[in-house]
Amino acid sequence: MFVPGLIERKRERGALTADEWRGLLAAYAEGRVPDYQISALLMACFLNGLTREELPGLLDGMMGEGGHLDFGRLGRPVVDKHSTGGVGDKVSLVLAPLVAACGVAVPMMSGRGLGHTGGTLDKLESIPGFDTQRSLEATMAQVERVGCAMIGQTPEIAPVDKKLYALRDVTATVESIPLIAASIMSKKLSEGLTGLVLDVKLGSGAFITDAARSRELAETMIRLGEDRGCRTVALLTAMDRPLGRACGNALEVEESVEALKGGGPDDLREVTLAEGVEMLMLAGRTDRGAARRELEEALAGGRAARKFQEIIEAQGGNPAVVDDPAVLPQAKQVEVYAAPRAGTVLEVAPRPIGRAIVQMGGGRQKVDDVVDPTVGFVISARPGQRVAKGEPLASIYARHDEDVRVARAALDQAVRIGEGAASPLPLVAARMTVTGTEPVAA
Amino acid sequence: MFVPGLIERKRERGALTADEWRGLLAAYAEGRVPDYQISALLMACFLNGLTREELPGLLDGMMGEGGHLDFGRLGRPVVDKHSTGGVGDKVSLVLAPLVAACGVAVPMMSGRGLGHTGGTLDKLESIPGFDTQRSLEATMAQVERVGCAMIGQTPEIAPVDKKLYALRDVTATVESIPLIAASIMSKKLSEGLTGLVLDVKLGSGAFITDAARSRELAETMIRLGEDRGCRTVALLTAMDRPLGRACGNALEVEESVEALKGGGPDDLREVTLAEGVEMLMLAGRTDRGAARRELEEALAGGRAARKFQEIIEAQGGNPAVVDDPAVLPQAKQVEVYAAPRAGTVLEVAPRPIGRAIVQMGGGRQKVDDVVDPTVGFVISARPGQRVAKGEPLASIYARHDEDVRVARAALDQAVRIGEGAASPLPLVAARMTVTGTEPVAA
Repeated sequence: MFVPGLIERKRERGALTADEWRGLLAAYAEGRVPDYQISALLMACFLNGLTREELPGLLDGMMGEGGHLDFGRLGRPVVDKHSTGGVGDKVSLVLAPLVAACGVAVPMMSGRGLGHTGGTLDKLESIPGFDTQRSLEATMAQVERVGCAMIGQTPEIAPVDKKLYALRDVTATVESIPLIAASIMSKKLSEGLTGLVLDVKLGSGAFITDAARSRELAETMIRLGEDRGCRTVALLTAMDRPLGRACGNALEVEESVEALKGGGPDDLREVTLAEGVEMLMLAGRTDRGAARRELEEALAGGRAARKFQEIIEAQGGNPAVVDDPAVLPQAKQVEVYAAPRAGTVLEVAPRPIGRAIVQMGGGRQKVDDVVDPTVGFVISARPGQRVAKGEPLASIYARHDEDVRVARAALDQAVRIGEGAASPLPLVAARMTVTGTEPVAA
Repeated sequence: MFVPGLIERKRERGALTADEWRGLLAAYAEGRVPDYQISALLMACFLNGLTREELPGLLDGMMGEGGHLDFGRLGRPVVDKHSTGGVGDKVSLVLAPLVAACGVAVPMMSGRGLGHTGGTLDKLESIPGFDTQRSLEATMAQVERVGCAMIGQTPEIAPVDKKLYALRDVTATVESIPLIAASIMSKKLSEGLTGLVLDVKLGSGAFITDAARSRELAETMIRLGEDRGCRTVALLTAMDRPLGRACGNALEVEESVEALKGGGPDDLREVTLAEGVEMLMLAGRTDRGAARRELEEALAGGRAARKFQEIIEAQGGNPAVVDDPAVLPQAKQVEVYAAPRAGTVLEVAPRPIGRAIVQMGGGRQKVDDVVDPTVGFVISARPGQRVAKGEPLASIYARHDEDVRVARAALDQAVRIGEGAASPLPLVAARMTVTGTEPVAA
């Protein structure tokens, strides 16, 4: 294997074969190919793209000789979801227990907060005792017994992806659709899934703000999943405003528990049900209306909330959180943010909110930062709402006055009040499958 | 300095400021920026280019805090030449002593063989005792005393370029015009020159085989030189066949000595005189015809050959080589290559010849290979020549039978005999300066 020759081929817009990708990334995993050659190759991939035929080879290489979950003996459909990330996006916390309560196995492997977005693991870890770092064996046993586990990527899963991701992070090669798609799918396809629902965010708070590129990402991931026999569906959902009201780790757990009991904000409930219907259909249900009623009953009847309790208990957390949110760590200071003037809420921009949470200690600015689970926002203002001057629009949860100032400045920037009409994106804009895209009435 | 941000800017076709280039490459030189970030940046530069305004910043960064020659106290014009490299290209060996014999200081810093091309240092080192690794001080003293030194890049000269070049070599980022131009000029502009002549090769044996790209390279180097107050002229010369007859280190020294005595092949003499005229004009001569006559007299009168003797002596070599080529190491085996059939020589392709020399031990396949100075070819066949079957076309100089076979196979490939007319490139196709390009009658 002559590595400069492989780099040169990508540089000249050629393609590597599946064998070349596998051999190259295996050698990289073993330290026989240095970072500096891989980073040059990644930049060539970033700028020149990968052919459609080439991408499965990269995916294989990323999965490498890594471990995987195997539910062959379970005899049940195994379905998961992945979100491209946003602010206030706590859907996973509601959806995994909900769908598991309907008898579908959900081996959910999630990530941490990244940039301005929150991460499912950080949210779960605000539940006292909750352990997200579980072995593959423990995870398989838990899924068999409880029907669901909510864990972080284990060291065995897609080890090359982990090494590549760290390199991309410091070489400005993150935001590449084929690289993102292969990275996400290398993890999800290690879960032994029969089906996967992708929540691809649109709007200013999404990682990819260009709608055409978001669709391309969804298409690319669907193709990779279907190629491997994992039926894959994507919903394109709104991230031009935070989802739900709570933004921040413990606050989002509290709101998720409300949703699991059949309450919570309408938009959170709606996106959760839309994705839940897709997951149940992938698990073999044949009637979308019936699937939705099944989910609604699991929420209303308390089965979804009980399933969350079981999961928490299985992973060492305090299950009392479902009955009493006061079990969650509480912020030192809570302050009200009032409308600085009367008018219509034209926008609640997610990015300033997400960035403020990181600054306030609720996310990481460096890899080894410790997250404060208590800080964040509960924002009641919604685009289109008429507000009076001085009307409370949000609560700020912070550690001290300085962070309250950061939070107020973020809200001043995020909440745009004026005259005219707000034009928020549709909550669920489209549904994409391997056969094409259809609009969704939601 | 946030390195991923700088990489991202190049990735998005932006430009780095001169301060950013300088800071980044200084940090790289000190090991504070890792190779893997620089290689990603180099690939972005390769694929997206550099703006014209940006390139001087890169050049500065490559020169870094490196040492340089300074001939301020000399009170004489200081001129050098650089060739982009070819097969049989021994012009430097003739030109440096010749121009020095005309009273111009020539502090020539050259390189080694690279790929299929030979290197001036390797050729000079076939002269017994000749030392090319001289300090900056020794070089300055020699130029003051003898008027010329012929040395390798010292460790102090353009240290960042050296590190970058090694990285480019293993990351498929060599053949980029701005990177090549800045690399060459970072060394030449460290020589304290008043003028520089560039010999940019055209044709299948050149590093860059596309004529438009060769012109672009010439333009880019001229601009960089002139920006720094070094008057810079480029001649575009033919490398669709070897230059002269001898190809291989000691063989080329022997042919260079013939040329220094007023003999040698016509094409070698012609290119040498064309570049010599440019060097004398850059040194202040005002009449091109008179400059050419001055050079011809230095050859015919023996002053050029004597100057070469002085240089050899100053650098520890055996000056007897000028009177007696038998001083040079001699090949073990010499074999004749005869025309396999009658016809017109349509082509003598340089690349197979150059590659064969490397294979026969006359160049390096790995960095630490030891070069055998004796091996190579003397090729009398010229494009356009009518040949009879069995007529000798070349002599092969080799270590053993196996290499003779390699050499014969290379000649079979390189020397194309058929019917019709040969169409060699003009020996000197054009002359380029900062004001534009003009054809040359040669």
